[in-house]
Amino acid sequence: MSFLAKRFTKPGAGQHFLATTVRQMSLVAKVLRYGEFGEPAKVLRLQEEPVPEPKDGEVLIRTLGAPINPADINTIQGKYPVKPSFPAVGGNECVGEVVAIGGGGSGGTSLKVGDRVVPFATGLGTWRSHAIYSAGQLMKVPAGIGVAEAATITVNPCTGYRMLKDFVSLKPGDTVIQNGANSACGQAIIQLCRAWNIECVGVVRDRPDFGQLKDYLKSLGAAEILTEEELRTTKLFRDGIFRKPKLALNCVGGKNALEMSRQLDQAGVMVTYGGMSREPVTVPTASLIFKDLRFVGFWMTRWTKENAASPARAEMFNELFGLIDRGALKAPAHEMIAFDQYISAVTNALNIQGFVGKKYIFNF
Amino acid sequence: MSFLAKRFTKPGAGQHFLATTVRQMSLVAKVLRYGEFGEPAKVLRLQEEPVPEPKDGEVLIRTLGAPINPADINTIQGKYPVKPSFPAVGGNECVGEVVAIGGGGSGGTSLKVGDRVVPFATGLGTWRSHAIYSAGQLMKVPAGIGVAEAATITVNPCTGYRMLKDFVSLKPGDTVIQNGANSACGQAIIQLCRAWNIECVGVVRDRPDFGQLKDYLKSLGAAEILTEEELRTTKLFRDGIFRKPKLALNCVGGKNALEMSRQLDQAGVMVTYGGMSREPVTVPTASLIFKDLRFVGFWMTRWTKENAASPARAEMFNELFGLIDRGALKAPAHEMIAFDQYISAVTNALNIQGFVGKKYIFNF
Repeated sequence: MSFLAKRFTKPGAGQHFLATTVRQMSLVAKVLRYGEFGEPAKVLRLQEEPVPEPKDGEVLIRTLGAPINPADINTIQGKYPVKPSFPAVGGNECVGEVVAIGGGGSGGTSLKVGDRVVPFATGLGTWRSHAIYSAGQLMKVPAGIGVAEAATITVNPCTGYRMLKDFVSLKPGDTVIQNGANSACGQAIIQLCRAWNIECVGVVRDRPDFGQLKDYLKSLGAAEILTEEELRTTKLFRDGIFRKPKLALNCVGGKNALEMSRQLDQAGVMVTYGGMSREPVTVPTASLIFKDLRFVGFWMTRWTKENAASPARAEMFNELFGLIDRGALKAPAHEMIAFDQYISAVTNALNIQGFVGKKYIFNF
Repeated sequence: MSFLAKRFTKPGAGQHFLATTVRQMSLVAKVLRYGEFGEPAKVLRLQEEPVPEPKDGEVLIRTLGAPINPADINTIQGKYPVKPSFPAVGGNECVGEVVAIGGGGSGGTSLKVGDRVVPFATGLGTWRSHAIYSAGQLMKVPAGIGVAEAATITVNPCTGYRMLKDFVSLKPGDTVIQNGANSACGQAIIQLCRAWNIECVGVVRDRPDFGQLKDYLKSLGAAEILTEEELRTTKLFRDGIFRKPKLALNCVGGKNALEMSRQLDQAGVMVTYGGMSREPVTVPTASLIFKDLRFVGFWMTRWTKENAASPARAEMFNELFGLIDRGALKAPAHEMIAFDQYISAVTNALNIQGFVGKKYIFNF
């Protein structure tokens, strides 16, 4: 933590004093920008620039943590449907601390200096040490929520939450099956299922450390963890150890998704939210017609846009914050990495088994 | 038409007289039965048997027409999810004329001798010259509905009707795309779309007589007919000639279904009700996540079971009968074939380009 940062988090510092201080001290922000699509390690540039004073209705935050998500990499590569205008700032999630409020807070925001906030909007560009956002683009995070949990709450736990809530009606004792169970989203799904008394059966690729991974995911609350090969021959559902899944959550595609669909109960739903295998979802005709399976997709970015002002959104965050607060929802396995080490971070993020496993979170 | 049949349709013949006459004259029914699964031409046996007198609550009908549907062939082959108990009677649709009512009609049915009826239940086994059904298993067909239209109303027009009504909200001017547009169901869908002012774009396999087929389907009301190859490069939707389809109806699968899904509008739905290509539906991950496409199936048999007593069912038949009555819905291209010629009929039904084209309807 830099000297400047320490100054700005000093307890009791007044808003107006801080806004003035920012200007006076010529606060320098580090920003990770790109001006063209390409491999992140090649196109990203770490730039330094003075932080302007926040205007009325704006809030200056100091970033405490900002993760590297698969979608962030894909966006920089130009492979994501969301195309930023250049120059663009990488990243889509963060947690920050309010260090100044423009116009002395006359803009009507209830945010206060010292509050922890996360973006309540997508595409803000969060890979920067400091940022000025509109107050309406930020949501206050309750005290007691850790940096890693807050920095990663708006994408994966929300994705898992919505997929578990919006497609089928799940009752305690019902089963959900998911592949990529060790992904960041998979880890959130396991924990949400545990909190709601839903049996979550996870599927992961076979690997040398499968036993260790299985133990870890079961410690999060998974009812069972299967390799892709075990999935093909499992009798867990046939023999009634678990109810046949009403819901399958798919971030892999290809044969793995097909095998999951075979385990689905009559009228079950497969929700696709990723495609790590880069293979499409194959749907046998009979499973559509006679088994009445439904295949749909979910994209958190769309949900957020369509529900920006919906009470469902506040309700979701309240429930997630509550779960985090009582220790029922932890951040995914992660490693904090210094912002300056961004080249190593974005390069390794691409190489960690297609994002299955550890998540990098920048600290500043 | 046999001498006996003529006697029983004599206008003004009283119910009790007829019931008595049936018994006295030892009416002989011809029934097409099978006692094992296999190729229809091999396992079907045409049997003759005396027709018993209908009991109270039962109705004796003389069959006027009974079609050969793909599902009938698949059922006999043992390839259909509905498995009859043996010995079974083939067929699932027909139109018949009431020739006697058990107990003199004291069972409370409103049916009368001379009424035309269709089965209001599935799996009755309709390939027989005469049948006794419970009155509740029959639905009266309004006068003026032709034999071919009535004999084929419960499967294909109902399938088309439900698929157009139950998955997306279609407004006049909206577009529906369908493959297998020349199938019996496809022909019904084209006519329903015309009646409801929906643009129906049909896809068929290329063939020597494509021009003739296209003219025929356009005469039914198709907005446009494309070959599979034309579908791949069509600019009809890109250039705004038609609105992008909200709904795709798929009875083919494979590449054809994939190409249709590419033409679907954002949040469009593909309903699969057949798989003539015997290839599964391939769903690109991005079309699920970012384009929000949904892939579902439809099975008329299930709908009928789930909605046996629903007002939606009577409403559907009333609307379909009304359309037939005013000439807006005609039977699919068909050929009446004598019941005795069943071997030729079931053999050719399998060979007519996978059921695309002409439908056989038994007459008796």
